[in-house]
Amino acid sequence: MYYNDPKLQYPVRVDKPNPLFAKALQQAIGGIEGEIRVCMQYFFQAWGMRGPKKYRDMLLATATEELGHIEMLATAVALNLEDAPLSLQEEVSADPVGGAILNGMNMRHILSSGLAAMPVDASGVPFDMSHIYASGNGAADMLANVTAESTGRALAVRLYNMTDDPGMKDMLQFLIARDTMHQNQWMAAIEDMGGIAEALPIPNSHPQDEENREFSYAFLGFDKDGAQPVQGRWSSGTSFDGKGEFTSRPMQPLGEEPDLGLARPKSGAQSAQIGSGGGILNKIL
Amino acid sequence: MYYNDPKLQYPVRVDKPNPLFAKALQQAIGGIEGEIRVCMQYFFQAWGMRGPKKYRDMLLATATEELGHIEMLATAVALNLEDAPLSLQEEVSADPVGGAILNGMNMRHILSSGLAAMPVDASGVPFDMSHIYASGNGAADMLANVTAESTGRALAVRLYNMTDDPGMKDMLQFLIARDTMHQNQWMAAIEDMGGIAEALPIPNSHPQDEENREFSYAFLGFDKDGAQPVQGRWSSGTSFDGKGEFTSRPMQPLGEEPDLGLARPKSGAQSAQIGSGGGILNKIL
Amino acid sequence: MYYNDPKLQYPVRVDKPNPLFAKALQQAIGGIEGEIRVCMQYFFQAWGMRGPKKYRDMLLATATEELGHIEMLATAVALNLEDAPLSLQEEVSADPVGGAILNGMNMRHILSSGLAAMPVDASGVPFDMSHIYASGNGAADMLANVTAESTGRALAVRLYNMTDDPGMKDMLQFLIARDTMHQNQWMAAIEDMGGIAEALPIPNSHPQDEENREFSYAFLGFDKDGAQPVQGRWSSGTSFDGKGEFTSRPMQPLGEEPDLGLARPKSGAQSAQIGSGGGILNKIL
Amino acid sequence: MYYNDPKLQYPVRVDKPNPLFAKALQQAIGGIEGEIRVCMQYFFQAWGMRGPKKYRDMLLATATEELGHIEMLATAVALNLEDAPLSLQEEVSADPVGGAILNGMNMRHILSSGLAAMPVDASGVPFDMSHIYASGNGAADMLANVTAESTGRALAVRLYNMTDDPGMKDMLQFLIARDTMHQNQWMAAIEDMGGIAEALPIPNSHPQDEENREFSYAFLGFDKDGAQPVQGRWSSGTSFDGKGEFTSRPMQPLGEEPDLGLARPKSGAQSAQIGSGGGILNKIL
Amino acid sequence: MYYNDPKLQYPVRVDKPNPLFAKALQQAIGGIEGEIRVCMQYFFQAWGMRGPKKYRDMLLATATEELGHIEMLATAVALNLEDAPLSLQEEVSADPVGGAILNGMNMRHILSSGLAAMPVDASGVPFDMSHIYASGNGAADMLANVTAESTGRALAVRLYNMTDDPGMKDMLQFLIARDTMHQNQWMAAIEDMGGIAEALPIPNSHPQDEENREFSYAFLGFDKDGAQPVQGRWSSGTSFDGKGEFTSRPMQPLGEEPDLGLARPKSGAQSAQIGSGGGILNKIL
Amino acid sequence: MYYNDPKLQYPVRVDKPNPLFAKALQQAIGGIEGEIRVCMQYFFQAWGMRGPKKYRDMLLATATEELGHIEMLATAVALNLEDAPLSLQEEVSADPVGGAILNGMNMRHILSSGLAAMPVDASGVPFDMSHIYASGNGAADMLANVTAESTGRALAVRLYNMTDDPGMKDMLQFLIARDTMHQNQWMAAIEDMGGIAEALPIPNSHPQDEENREFSYAFLGFDKDGAQPVQGRWSSGTSFDGKGEFTSRPMQPLGEEPDLGLARPKSGAQSAQIGSGGGILNKIL
Repeated sequence: MYYNDPKLQYPVRVDKPNPLFAKALQQAIGGIEGEIRVCMQYFFQAWGMRGPKKYRDMLLATATEELGHIEMLATAVALNLEDAPLSLQEEVSADPVGGAILNGMNMRHILSSGLAAMPVDASGVPFDMSHIYASGNGAADMLANVTAESTGRALAVRLYNMTDDPGMKDMLQFLIARDTMHQNQWMAAIEDMGGIAEALPIPNSHPQDEENREFSYAFLGFDKDGAQPVQGRWSSGTSFDGKGEFTSRPMQPLGEEPDLGLARPKSGAQSAQIGSGGGILNKIL
Repeated sequence: MYYNDPKLQYPVRVDKPNPLFAKALQQAIGGIEGEIRVCMQYFFQAWGMRGPKKYRDMLLATATEELGHIEMLATAVALNLEDAPLSLQEEVSADPVGGAILNGMNMRHILSSGLAAMPVDASGVPFDMSHIYASGNGAADMLANVTAESTGRALAVRLYNMTDDPGMKDMLQFLIARDTMHQNQWMAAIEDMGGIAEALPIPNSHPQDEENREFSYAFLGFDKDGAQPVQGRWSSGTSFDGKGEFTSRPMQPLGEEPDLGLARPKSGAQSAQIGSGGGILNKIL
Repeated sequence: MYYNDPKLQYPVRVDKPNPLFAKALQQAIGGIEGEIRVCMQYFFQAWGMRGPKKYRDMLLATATEELGHIEMLATAVALNLEDAPLSLQEEVSADPVGGAILNGMNMRHILSSGLAAMPVDASGVPFDMSHIYASGNGAADMLANVTAESTGRALAVRLYNMTDDPGMKDMLQFLIARDTMHQNQWMAAIEDMGGIAEALPIPNSHPQDEENREFSYAFLGFDKDGAQPVQGRWSSGTSFDGKGEFTSRPMQPLGEEPDLGLARPKSGAQSAQIGSGGGILNKIL
Repeated sequence: MYYNDPKLQYPVRVDKPNPLFAKALQQAIGGIEGEIRVCMQYFFQAWGMRGPKKYRDMLLATATEELGHIEMLATAVALNLEDAPLSLQEEVSADPVGGAILNGMNMRHILSSGLAAMPVDASGVPFDMSHIYASGNGAADMLANVTAESTGRALAVRLYNMTDDPGMKDMLQFLIARDTMHQNQWMAAIEDMGGIAEALPIPNSHPQDEENREFSYAFLGFDKDGAQPVQGRWSSGTSFDGKGEFTSRPMQPLGEEPDLGLARPKSGAQSAQIGSGGGILNKIL
Repeated sequence: MYYNDPKLQYPVRVDKPNPLFAKALQQAIGGIEGEIRVCMQYFFQAWGMRGPKKYRDMLLATATEELGHIEMLATAVALNLEDAPLSLQEEVSADPVGGAILNGMNMRHILSSGLAAMPVDASGVPFDMSHIYASGNGAADMLANVTAESTGRALAVRLYNMTDDPGMKDMLQFLIARDTMHQNQWMAAIEDMGGIAEALPIPNSHPQDEENREFSYAFLGFDKDGAQPVQGRWSSGTSFDGKGEFTSRPMQPLGEEPDLGLARPKSGAQSAQIGSGGGILNKIL
Repeated sequence: MYYNDPKLQYPVRVDKPNPLFAKALQQAIGGIEGEIRVCMQYFFQAWGMRGPKKYRDMLLATATEELGHIEMLATAVALNLEDAPLSLQEEVSADPVGGAILNGMNMRHILSSGLAAMPVDASGVPFDMSHIYASGNGAADMLANVTAESTGRALAVRLYNMTDDPGMKDMLQFLIARDTMHQNQWMAAIEDMGGIAEALPIPNSHPQDEENREFSYAFLGFDKDGAQPVQGRWSSGTSFDGKGEFTSRPMQPLGEEPDLGLARPKSGAQSAQIGSGGGILNKIL
């Protein structure tokens, strides 16, 4: 169960409202790298977590935090839209800078939300919950979380570099710091579970003697001319999970050309595919 | 540029066609854990990669491999649909097992594809390219790839446990092994770049003195009663990236309650929000 | 800012796990009538609310409650999946009831989430945030909320009628009651703002003398034979908003047939559309 | 069955084509507040309506009208695109106003439709039929329709305020008036069915003694500090539906902390979640 | 402008309601091969058509017809849902046939629409208007229409083969016939514009001397071993458009390996990609 | 199975980077007319093809080619983003041209991809695999392919007309030529199968005596006043498929007004729809 405090987790101040930056900030709300994503991802992972209870608790804590980050960003978007132009009046169009603002902003900030945030990205595409990765496998989920916080921090850094508004920079410095923590936190959780090498191959509960071990640690090349694939840490030495030795080689097809045969009658295919169509099929085969 | 060989990378054999398993296999084609996703993700990462060339080469190699995996799975789906029922005829409905097959299969395998694979998941939802994570940050991308291969291997293992068809089990043993390799490969690539600890916080090119360091390594609790948050590897000791010390504490709001003021005239709000609506607003404020 | 308590708002108990009911319950999580929708809708309305502060407070309270409802339902889904079959083994297929369960359940509950809830509906379609209606107009938003709670309660009632599990019936009786309250609450909020009749036409801040008043209270018929349209409360008497008199009549076109002319050169049209294509266009015009 | 007349329902005239306004108008075609939505929503409600026939008739009439509104708006978009720039030629870029037009317009109006309307919103996102609310419950549907016409009229008003083109203003005055009527019409339909208070709680066919009446009229607070929730029309007095008395109070959790136990073997979880993974789980629990 | 007649274009009768067939019929409503698609596609093509007026008229006629087909199919779905089970009661589950019906049907037909049609496909995925192909090029649009009617008739034939309900078979015989006509109609329209060969290459208004004619009629092979590509009508002889001669050959890369260089500072990349990260990049390059 | 060569199929050169053209080029990558679509469409058609093997081979060849085209375009996007502005700094906003560039470009090229291509269209909407048309009917698929190449070439021509960058024009001349070939190729494939007239009505394996032949070649009018429909090649003469004679006439409804009766109890409808609601229903009926 959840509670709220009407205050914000961290101050949100906009010194000079900019509707273009409002559009950019939307990526941090409704983008795949944004806060709705991590908030809901951590909640669904927590609500479905089986195993040691402490991971559920940790996930709930940070999910709850992220909800407050959406709130901060939604506030920042609304404040950046304070003075946004509401019309295409000619005097505005004649002013290149003013015109460019209306042209460049997300028009739905005027038309749909009345100068407030929406759960969409910087292109106006709504967030889609298929991006909530919650696999039922704790290690896979933690990795998904490090990934989400990595693209999230890259996004926050790019927003930070884009603006020179002191209020916005201050808010982003806080959010960037939280992403630093959360990257560390999810990696620490993997350590807490025994470490990343031990976790691999995920799921580590599947017996590896039921996989085709000839291919479990082989880096395969698909160069047109059969050249040896590019070498690196991945092509020789002990595998990252410590359970095998990397090798590398060009790949050759081991299977045959598939043959699906003719189409069945009443399956909606053309006669030529079914074999009842007269001369065409016979001529061809 | 790309080339093809009509043969399959690995043999695909179905001993006893099962349209329900065809539906399940679709998750490995068009699901978010599936092969279209990794194929296209690695291609887009490669095509946009800036920095050392060898990562581009490695990404291209494995992207090219994954294209062949989609092909294998598409073949497996078509073969599992070989004898699928095409009608709801009464005798079939009366047969609980036969009826259940038609009821349970993806009807679009009959209606839309003519007994062949589609780029959809096990629920019939089409794959959506927003799941192609290619961030322009090499470490974030590699982590996204380990994540993708982790959920991919979990999926392959679940499919393996679901079927008892020897042909399908053989194919899945190969695919599970490849997922083992690819998890190791992307982690090895991070090692090759200097290691995961050094990579963090991603992006590591952003100077940490421009983040709010008070919050960079603090695990924050949001318990209703202000209790100390759950302890673990993430709450004390050196941070995973080696650049700080974990601390933990309950969080308090640092910001104020936001006040967006009244709505602007001509913004499409109600009069009561604008302040011109007569007594209501005055009564309330 | 937000807080959590690990306990549930109301007890969730499943007496006899049923993976088919788990699939049905998903509609109340990720369906357009479900709890993610109302939770996020109320949050975004609150975060963007301009005007009297008390509506923001009320929205925040109920949004926070709904987050706990998602949690309850996610728990219910996981508990209903407790004994779900993980394989298509022949003995199960031969058992019509067991087979039908596997056939009928959402296979992604096995393949993607490891027997836990997902943010998808009963067909497995992910929730999409475009359904978060937050218009910047308080009255429109309250109506959207009554609507959401109406379809929400209809859904909860249908789920209640579908199951005979005592634990699930108890939980649904609670959720149905909350939907009763929330329908009343949002209508009361409109009363609080002055009443529904005064709120109309939404937005009531737009001067009606800038609309074409000839058509503001006319019920128009489009019957092929020009018959008078069907009569009811909407075709005569004072309009619902008290600002006009209903009339009714068959409609005739007032505009002309549009003529977009020829296509422009270099616009990618066919020559015949541009006028340079030789005899065809001339022959026709 | 349906018929057409090539003439428009109301004249559509553009005095000064403006590709930016074409982009804005798209919201009224393919936006969630737009005409495709109401057209299809009323059709699907009509086609599925059970109960008194006159509601079906009324729905069909207005659905048919809305189809003509899409046509009007599509014509308006095409006319606004008449003189749109087709190239990024340098002289245009050097002209700040001209450049801003090309930059700001929906490029797909050039690239995909050849200067014509598309079923997308102002951000270029295609309309998605999940927004067709047709619940099988007449009162819920009527409320959904008032809501749709409310956001629809807010949108039309915002477009009206955005442009100063006399032709476009005239067309929008007509559409705004129709939205006024339709808001009144659907509310009148609810009156015709017995009134909004009697309709609640929707569905009113579900016996209220099968809901948990302790919570049916209670406004619950979720304030972190357990404060009394914000008071208003919703917190005391007779409920809007006249079937109860509003109360209010802070909420406490009534359920326990959920415990999903350990993950099942072969479910794709990590060993640490299953309990067979050795020391880790034991150490933790 | 549009009109309606409450009668159906063709009788719709269901002799034995079958909720599974209701689910299958949804593909013909909200599937990509279905009637919403052709209806809206023809309308948008008509509304944006530039050039000879008669094509607009023809498109409007058939678009209007298709609207009546959605109506017929929506009626057919509702009638097939007449006796659908509303509960998972134990006695039903114990009956394999009854259980299979509930398991197999679209649960949203109970939960969301109250036993009526929805604008979704047979998997429950909502129709998405991005499938409305209206390109501004008349010939491309006509081809898109033949394609739509081809997959549409394949779908109708598959539905016809799936059912043995006499009423449904009669309705489908009508719809199949209309698809026959519409395939012929759009091909005839291309003839009317001068013929398919003359129409190619679409758009035929683009001067072919501004394309790289070396590749305009060459069938290229991408066989791994450089083999000659598979021969057929497409590899030799006069091209279909009569404007060239088919040739064929294996393809070789004509471009170089792309080099995107290093990432820019402040672009959110890792240090190793930017060149400022110390030894790693230097070691690698 | 597939192979790669790191070189590009054709040179990609950008003489003057332009982030707005990068945005436009995205349509050719992730738009419905773009290269991901044809690439994946041909692959899925090939992988599911039943009937003569040579069509599979041809589809595989061209699918493989299209993969290389995505690569070319992704490279072109990245090169066009070389000098894109990364900030909203005031000096840039004050410069109308520079400001307009940042305003007009896809901000996600900065925020999400780090100056690289994404699988989205020119509006930033991600490509969705539902556009992969692979019907199991060879002729329908070939027509879908001609259609795809027609809108694809229209798009390439529009991009060609939009830019004056010599490198980009050269690349597009190549891609336009390939679209010319592919349009011819798929039409030639239909000829190879016996010709388009013989292929119709698709699927030609369905016996036409099982369709309602009264309507198989009739062009129907839906004019409000019962006028004869617009005449053309489609209204008289031998049908395109040579299997009938075109006729034309106004259409009249042949069915009755549908009556779905009352709603069932426990179906979630209002009492007024069920008949148990007291006087309302009786009063109305």
